[in-house]
Amino acid sequence: MDERIAKCDLWLERRGAFEHVVVSSRARFARNLQMVPFPHCASEGERGRVYRRVAEAIEQVPQLTGAIHFELSQLGRKERSYLRESNVISQEMEIVDSYKERGLFLSPDVRVGVMVNEEDHLRIFALEAGFQPYEVLKRASDLEMTLDNLLAFAFSERFGYLTACPSNTGTGLRISVMLHLPGLVLTEQVSQIFEAMPQLGMTVRGFQGERSENHGNFFQLSNEVTLGLSEEQIVDRFKKIIEDLIAKEEAARHELFKNHGLKLEDQIWRAFGILSHARQVTSHEALSLLTLLRLGVDRGFFRGLDHHALNRLAIEVQPSHIELRRQASGPESRDEARALFLRERLAMAAPRN
Amino acid sequence: MDERIAKCDLWLERRGAFEHVVVSSRARFARNLQMVPFPHCASEGERGRVYRRVAEAIEQVPQLTGAIHFELSQLGRKERSYLRESNVISQEMEIVDSYKERGLFLSPDVRVGVMVNEEDHLRIFALEAGFQPYEVLKRASDLEMTLDNLLAFAFSERFGYLTACPSNTGTGLRISVMLHLPGLVLTEQVSQIFEAMPQLGMTVRGFQGERSENHGNFFQLSNEVTLGLSEEQIVDRFKKIIEDLIAKEEAARHELFKNHGLKLEDQIWRAFGILSHARQVTSHEALSLLTLLRLGVDRGFFRGLDHHALNRLAIEVQPSHIELRRQASGPESRDEARALFLRERLAMAAPRN
Repeated sequence: MDERIAKCDLWLERRGAFEHVVVSSRARFARNLQMVPFPHCASEGERGRVYRRVAEAIEQVPQLTGAIHFELSQLGRKERSYLRESNVISQEMEIVDSYKERGLFLSPDVRVGVMVNEEDHLRIFALEAGFQPYEVLKRASDLEMTLDNLLAFAFSERFGYLTACPSNTGTGLRISVMLHLPGLVLTEQVSQIFEAMPQLGMTVRGFQGERSENHGNFFQLSNEVTLGLSEEQIVDRFKKIIEDLIAKEEAARHELFKNHGLKLEDQIWRAFGILSHARQVTSHEALSLLTLLRLGVDRGFFRGLDHHALNRLAIEVQPSHIELRRQASGPESRDEARALFLRERLAMAAPRN
Repeated sequence: MDERIAKCDLWLERRGAFEHVVVSSRARFARNLQMVPFPHCASEGERGRVYRRVAEAIEQVPQLTGAIHFELSQLGRKERSYLRESNVISQEMEIVDSYKERGLFLSPDVRVGVMVNEEDHLRIFALEAGFQPYEVLKRASDLEMTLDNLLAFAFSERFGYLTACPSNTGTGLRISVMLHLPGLVLTEQVSQIFEAMPQLGMTVRGFQGERSENHGNFFQLSNEVTLGLSEEQIVDRFKKIIEDLIAKEEAARHELFKNHGLKLEDQIWRAFGILSHARQVTSHEALSLLTLLRLGVDRGFFRGLDHHALNRLAIEVQPSHIELRRQASGPESRDEARALFLRERLAMAAPRN
């Protein structure tokens, strides 16, 4: 497989805070060039010129020296899907083949990146493992300023930064986290908590962005409101809400064990037994069973398996990761390869007696 | 737990032929004393006299020197259930508390025994692991002859040995085997094959005698006809029928792997993963999963686990075995103790890579 593709998971190797609940933190700014139509109403020629202007600017950006660069139209379906699973491109970038001239630039350490001609001309982002809202804001913001100096983004005194979708207008900032919330799901609190999120200016999505169902109790939470607040205010509020959710999740896991200790312990060990022995595992089942392992790791059931490893696994068991990393093709071969991958990984996770 | 109870499983430690299909072989003779009513229509005094006469005779029987002796009414419910699970008493002996004066004598090696005042005054039997029809016939027959010399059993020139139930009249011989037939069950051939059994003079029962359902694909097969055939003819016919069934079972297992290799392999490994990790396992689930392990042992999947060990496990996971051997009490404590027992046993059964 393409070396560059494999590198997209580098961020997964870093550590972050609250990894028992937070898989990843991400901040992005939606930005557009002045006097050029937004990508969806631009001509191919116009999009091509945007691409080249951005690429030239990026050559002068210190954070992106030696950038990993993908022209999306030159990647196959599996490769694009891999990048989306790795969280370095959006579902929008993966699915739509309708126009060329779309690109991704990633810093060699995959801390920051730029998507070109997604919904906006530029999506400037930073990505970290665990809960690092200020870090990702700072890195994305630094990169945004550097690029603004070079490209002069479309800005209105009245509205702030102009974006293709009005919901992004203003700061153009969206900060998001991927959370693993088995406690709140199993104690059936999650619906009620999520119903209150819009009032707090938050949006909830399933594991893989807007279109997907919740798999394995993973949820993406992001700020909805970008207008009328400063970047700092957005992140401060976001951080408070997520910290409150983390506390609720911890309490729910504690409650689960208090009320269903033995039953739950049994389920956790069965999940471990299946994952470390099965010969065919779908990604859906893998995520469900990894959820139970999460609760076991909380309780110190396994040696050599921690929350960081589980967060990596949640990304690595996905279909295109398995297909490309393990040379599998088609669902059956993938389920076999996934089972082998899980056995290898969990072989290191000996049960504590 | 009572030392004598534990000894009832000694037969399980021996080896026998065709252990991949046959758990145990058993032969028994139904015999009655002359001029005494059959147990169900005898008075307590009469049954007591039968018991004492048999006990006195047994003292002179070389095969039963140092016999393990149980007076059933002095055993608790769990102990009697343990003996039935071990296959050394019948369900009739276990369940009915309606009259006392019932006993069991076992040779110290648990190769032969006598039940007193079951349906007949004496049930003289021999028991072995695996498929040993001639051996159990020979041992039961030798013991029967010794006891006949001492007790002079009720016999009619016209009908043969007289028994409480007419179906036993004649030789009074019933020869039976406990078979494990997952192949025939999973390939859905078992019903058709069993439907033909009565025409062959055979009776089929579930795992635990007449009243029970089939659990985990175990079946007890025995000869139905005892009248008009010699003992040798009965065993010759029985042996042929069982050997034919063994061949059919082997073919079915082969076919299963040919047609569903990967799926089956997956199920086998999942069963192993669950049994070697779960914290609560019912006996029903244990038998179902051990069935899958059987198919894995056929294929050499596990080191340190063979068909002999699986046959022992099928007996040892049963409720009263777990309760008495593992000091458990009540279903939940039993399921926990059973899970621990299985983990200990399977810890030795490392997967072959």
